[in-house]
Amino acid sequence: MPYFDTASAAPLHPVARQALQASLDEGWADPARLYREGRRARLLLDAAREAAAEAVGCRPDELVFTPSGTHAVHTGVAGALAGRRRVGGHLVVSAVEHSSVLHAADAHEAAGGTVTQVPVDRAGAVSPSGYASVLDPSTALACLQSANHEVGTVQPVAEVAEVCAAAGVPLLVDAAQSLGWGPVEGGWSVLTASAHKWGGPAGVGLLAVRKGVRFSPQFPADERESGRSPGFVNLPAVVAAAASLRAVRAEAEAEAARLRTLVDRIRRRVARLVPDVEVVGDPERRLPHLVTFSCLYVDGETLLHELDRAGYSVSSGSSCTSSTLTPSHVLRAMGVLSEGNVRVSLPPGTTAQEVNGFLEVLPGVVAGVRATLGVGAPPAAEPVSDALEIDALGLRCPQPVIELARAIGTVPVGGTVTVLSDDEVARLDIPAWCTMRGHTYVGEAPRPAGVAYTVRRRV
Amino acid sequence: MPYFDTASAAPLHPVARQALQASLDEGWADPARLYREGRRARLLLDAAREAAAEAVGCRPDELVFTPSGTHAVHTGVAGALAGRRRVGGHLVVSAVEHSSVLHAADAHEAAGGTVTQVPVDRAGAVSPSGYASVLDPSTALACLQSANHEVGTVQPVAEVAEVCAAAGVPLLVDAAQSLGWGPVEGGWSVLTASAHKWGGPAGVGLLAVRKGVRFSPQFPADERESGRSPGFVNLPAVVAAAASLRAVRAEAEAEAARLRTLVDRIRRRVARLVPDVEVVGDPERRLPHLVTFSCLYVDGETLLHELDRAGYSVSSGSSCTSSTLTPSHVLRAMGVLSEGNVRVSLPPGTTAQEVNGFLEVLPGVVAGVRATLGVGAPPAAEPVSDALEIDALGLRCPQPVIELARAIGTVPVGGTVTVLSDDEVARLDIPAWCTMRGHTYVGEAPRPAGVAYTVRRRV
Repeated sequence: MPYFDTASAAPLHPVARQALQASLDEGWADPARLYREGRRARLLLDAAREAAAEAVGCRPDELVFTPSGTHAVHTGVAGALAGRRRVGGHLVVSAVEHSSVLHAADAHEAAGGTVTQVPVDRAGAVSPSGYASVLDPSTALACLQSANHEVGTVQPVAEVAEVCAAAGVPLLVDAAQSLGWGPVEGGWSVLTASAHKWGGPAGVGLLAVRKGVRFSPQFPADERESGRSPGFVNLPAVVAAAASLRAVRAEAEAEAARLRTLVDRIRRRVARLVPDVEVVGDPERRLPHLVTFSCLYVDGETLLHELDRAGYSVSSGSSCTSSTLTPSHVLRAMGVLSEGNVRVSLPPGTTAQEVNGFLEVLPGVVAGVRATLGVGAPPAAEPVSDALEIDALGLRCPQPVIELARAIGTVPVGGTVTVLSDDEVARLDIPAWCTMRGHTYVGEAPRPAGVAYTVRRRV
Repeated sequence: MPYFDTASAAPLHPVARQALQASLDEGWADPARLYREGRRARLLLDAAREAAAEAVGCRPDELVFTPSGTHAVHTGVAGALAGRRRVGGHLVVSAVEHSSVLHAADAHEAAGGTVTQVPVDRAGAVSPSGYASVLDPSTALACLQSANHEVGTVQPVAEVAEVCAAAGVPLLVDAAQSLGWGPVEGGWSVLTASAHKWGGPAGVGLLAVRKGVRFSPQFPADERESGRSPGFVNLPAVVAAAASLRAVRAEAEAEAARLRTLVDRIRRRVARLVPDVEVVGDPERRLPHLVTFSCLYVDGETLLHELDRAGYSVSSGSSCTSSTLTPSHVLRAMGVLSEGNVRVSLPPGTTAQEVNGFLEVLPGVVAGVRATLGVGAPPAAEPVSDALEIDALGLRCPQPVIELARAIGTVPVGGTVTVLSDDEVARLDIPAWCTMRGHTYVGEAPRPAGVAYTVRRRV
């Protein structure tokens, strides 16, 4: 049963399992103690820190283990901001960061700080000039992911780091999605990562802070992990995390090449096999194992459910907001279609057969969902009006777009269809649908109930 | 090789190991996902929460899993204080709380709050009236451990909870040391615990917040664990924690009776076999598996080192400050001797043979350390002066007390010895030595360098 959501959590790497089990016997004691069990634990902890630091590309004393990638991000952002409090309270983040970074930014704003979001292009990438234009003398910290968790686009980290260095602003890089594939290049100041994304166990994050970066942890004092990560270290998990990072790195080049080929096949064939689909994210500068596409006239949750029934585990929308009704902030920032969104992220070892199986069932599953939603050929009736208005209030994604698609054939070329909708997703998906279809998106206007989105039929 | 420091970290319980290994296969996926791997993880998480809640004595929706006991305490203290911010900023803690609670109190004070420490008696226990007398209309939260981590004294939690309830103040109970032995009785509002103290894995804390208690987590938003514990849940460890809590509870009554007998033997025989020793902590209202004593004229770290060489792993002083030169805040608050301090905490399954072996080597080890430090019979010389002053500047514990013990025989009955010392430990240990020896502690006076401690020789 293929599991294609490794960007959310990867199954435990065999080396991680082995290291975890071995260190359950040797690594349960307090490494701060001086007796033999403590000394053994300390040796394991030191060795794990050295291995992880080597993989990150930093000194062991620059690296601490946290209980999760989220803790690493929260601690990293708050600590770096507090360390430069005298400089100012301005934080810069990209619009497509992981929710842990954006939530840390929200907390900073709630505490009186200011936050600027750097926009991305339609492929999901920031530009170095985008960062350069918003750094100012009060900027305490800039954050940028190494690669996007939802669409796989690799960010120009080294270039942004140069821009930040020129402005004297430290750069925090969230490397959660990429660290298993290789070290982050360029002059970052703070780096965060999460072990369960590379096949390590849950319960381990990495936080690296370069020497010389002002850093002030924002929680009660604790002697452990240089005061940067309170609480008893989960040593067996830390050992397993470090061992598996080394193991996946040893396999990374070959595995990346193999998975890149499989993902290329998905990108090409999805576009060919599924009507009305948009494959999103940069086709070249991207993670090797991840591809995302959106299907018009399809409800993402139903699509996931049907793919799950067919034996394929994939995710949809933002990795951390799939339970909400709002569209993924990443897709919104990119300005691409969000309805019927599917993220496929292949774990190491995924076979061509598994990918082929997925590509075989996908078109039928999408067609099935569309049939359930009543999507057929749009009515071929003669145009009845120059300016049609559809009441889609109360209808949820993808229904407003389905109604729009049905209606567009009933107005003459140059005529308009206005969709009245109170579904937040319509704001993103109606313009995206226009782009895909070649119609002109006229704009939106508030109404007493909902918003009116107007589209002009293409020539 | 007997390990007698289970109060610091317990070896993994066999049930924990079994549950951990089983759930590595079933519990690695994101429980928030809707596909089969996610649903399996969700089932495991729900079952673990129900089991843990039953052991704690709360509803499952009142309990969240944190990455450590320290995280549970930090989150619990900060969340409860923030939830009652409008009431005021007064926090009440006992003087013998775990450092995680005291550090959280320090952070609260640094942020502008006020903190009152409730004193303890010579056995290490607080009194309900001690809490009653310091609660005031601005008190937002009171904290009390269920049992002390260093000397084993059980606190009157139920009575203090009544006092707090009468004043309308929520009570946070740090149950780290006792939860494996049984639920905390009385009307607590917030409860914290740590799995690796009962034989569960590292990486799991418990935080229970009773319905109706105002609580406002003080970190960036996160959807997991009711917003009270950010980051990806370490599910295999959580499952192992819940399973092992259930298992140790099933064995608790019989094991407590067995270990209580062994600890009673240590209490009696240490006092008989080792000269100049003080067994501290309440002899009756105490944890079943833990005993602490202090040996005059002995350096704690050397003693631990020698016991380790003899095959016994024990700890000394405060569990979290053993690397510092200051005496344990617990022993200081109790006003008992801190030098040559040893904490013995027996893991379940400890045999009488192991304890007997420890009692056989201990007197020789203590005598050996004393011999190294030059402690012998005090000089039998005739009194030479009515008021002797000893310069012990620069000498570290236990040397100032050793010098004092040597000198006291050289003054007549009723004469005084004044020790000039710059070792912070002398302030605690010289009065404690007087209590043990029956001499009168006259008092201390500041000097340009160090402090002068004066003792009058007993009749």
